[in-house]
Amino acid sequence: MLNKKIGKQTIKFLEAPKIISANAIVGPKEGEGPLAQHFDTILDDDLFGLKSWEKAESKMIEETVKAAASKIKLSIKDIDYFFAGDLLNQLMSSTFAARDLQIPYIGLFGACSTLTESLSLSAMMIDGGYGDYAVAATSSHFSTAERQFRFPLELGNQRPLTSQWTVTGAGAAILSNKGKGPSIAYATIGKVIDFGIFDANNMGAAMAPAAVDTIKTHFSDTGLSPSDYDLIITGDLGVIGMDIAKDLLMKEGINVSHNFSDCGVKIFDHEKQDTHAGGSGCGCSAVVFCGYLYTELIEKKIKNLLLVSTGALLSPTSIQQGESIPSIAHAVAIRSS
Amino acid sequence: MLNKKIGKQTIKFLEAPKIISANAIVGPKEGEGPLAQHFDTILDDDLFGLKSWEKAESKMIEETVKAAASKIKLSIKDIDYFFAGDLLNQLMSSTFAARDLQIPYIGLFGACSTLTESLSLSAMMIDGGYGDYAVAATSSHFSTAERQFRFPLELGNQRPLTSQWTVTGAGAAILSNKGKGPSIAYATIGKVIDFGIFDANNMGAAMAPAAVDTIKTHFSDTGLSPSDYDLIITGDLGVIGMDIAKDLLMKEGINVSHNFSDCGVKIFDHEKQDTHAGGSGCGCSAVVFCGYLYTELIEKKIKNLLLVSTGALLSPTSIQQGESIPSIAHAVAIRSS
Repeated sequence: MLNKKIGKQTIKFLEAPKIISANAIVGPKEGEGPLAQHFDTILDDDLFGLKSWEKAESKMIEETVKAAASKIKLSIKDIDYFFAGDLLNQLMSSTFAARDLQIPYIGLFGACSTLTESLSLSAMMIDGGYGDYAVAATSSHFSTAERQFRFPLELGNQRPLTSQWTVTGAGAAILSNKGKGPSIAYATIGKVIDFGIFDANNMGAAMAPAAVDTIKTHFSDTGLSPSDYDLIITGDLGVIGMDIAKDLLMKEGINVSHNFSDCGVKIFDHEKQDTHAGGSGCGCSAVVFCGYLYTELIEKKIKNLLLVSTGALLSPTSIQQGESIPSIAHAVAIRSS
Repeated sequence: MLNKKIGKQTIKFLEAPKIISANAIVGPKEGEGPLAQHFDTILDDDLFGLKSWEKAESKMIEETVKAAASKIKLSIKDIDYFFAGDLLNQLMSSTFAARDLQIPYIGLFGACSTLTESLSLSAMMIDGGYGDYAVAATSSHFSTAERQFRFPLELGNQRPLTSQWTVTGAGAAILSNKGKGPSIAYATIGKVIDFGIFDANNMGAAMAPAAVDTIKTHFSDTGLSPSDYDLIITGDLGVIGMDIAKDLLMKEGINVSHNFSDCGVKIFDHEKQDTHAGGSGCGCSAVVFCGYLYTELIEKKIKNLLLVSTGALLSPTSIQQGESIPSIAHAVAIRSS
């Protein structure tokens, strides 16, 4: 059997599974941002007609999966696996979507890195011959995240300028060896990196070293260099974390001065929209990829993309117990077809 | 390429990845139960010398991975993937273990079904040629689960007789194509099943239909029947859920009268140990499998095992918002070598 692992942490997909459909649903605020035109659906009500934000978030993930399948006239019952995750405790959003979708379900938690975690596993599932169709989907919601991780919104707490704004949105990507679409060439699975940041309001700084570790490993494992990519885009480092990551990469001799960006920076006009350091959440890289970047790949405006979703794996309990913030990043290399 | 999926939800592993090592660490109460002699380590202090139960749980999962590797003289740095999960919000136990182990990490959440979720993905990883060694590990801790899901222990709340006792323990299994050990023949990935049970103190009843759905699908996908297995064992249905599952299976025409059991029933002497309906938690099927069942397979006392870890995917928030308890079960078929 061929060994598909190269270097320390990277998988080379010989069959190059294709992303044959993608869909992104966002909330009202994201729909006022610079990427608005790229999203399939913009909600005018972040409750999505339901009684709680958690139920709204779950409906977003369910609807985005249905819409991604509908675009290619694929029946939900023909999808073999649902790889999904979100920020809510016990993955409330993904689980209830899985209950309604009735697709065999693998629940994942990687905080905001979950999109590339789910894309990596979906690609292995397809590449390995374990099924014909896998869907990778993640979601987040500003109001569910605030009350779970920080404070009830009703308190009106002030947010420090280093804090990020959790994206309200869900994205889904369907992978298969059948059909057409951009293909996944590599996945680099990250390790947990902790540089000793304790400030839960500065997650960009905590996640930057994890992004750098994974990007550096990706290049050393594959022998590629930044110039092999049109765009290297992290998940949600925000403006502060992105600058730190860029500096750290340059210090490692990895020149990303021309082709580096961040989904959390792209999604909001952070000055006009008062989102401080930028967007975050499992939904951030999900909607930026499934909405904006996927179209750019289809239209060949981007031919080679390295998507590096980043997750801060802290919990309110770990912070209370004096722990610093462990982070992780997984990278997926995608080529336009 | 060969399609390795058979029927609706089952993977047939052509390379039959082997479980080349396993290890189980348990707390003091589990060490007084009927399976005591099968566990590698019994702690005499459920704080494991640390300042919080959460830190103790994380140390358990880290130590059990190290011990499983040490048994076969495998260096931790040679392990390609760490598939792990636990019951704590944001997988605090697995995440901090992953930070210290420095193995590329895939965080999973399937509540108490996480062991077979992690075994299934580890088997795919090895069978698909994506690496040489994968470790599947899960943990739970009575005291971390009680305070997260129910009440502070200091309140001394009474527990209803239908409630289960979260196992304090962690188990790890190392999979590879190299080396010797019982092999994984099939994995059946479950769907989320919800029969409308609302009582969070009766999770066995909520999970039983999910176990039945997966077991039934396993047999129809593979063409096998209960008599092909020496033992079909669910994760943690407990005494009440196990009886319900047996009844439901018999009604489906699946005769499991002679070879059906449950890890949550096996681990405690529920009358003497006052554990009410039996054990539960991600650690329950982990320590029963990695401690007891793995040895039975090695010694060929069991030749064909169907392990069906079961998870109740409720969250305190979903219960408060009036939702019933969604459940899931994944089955892994293991043959003695």
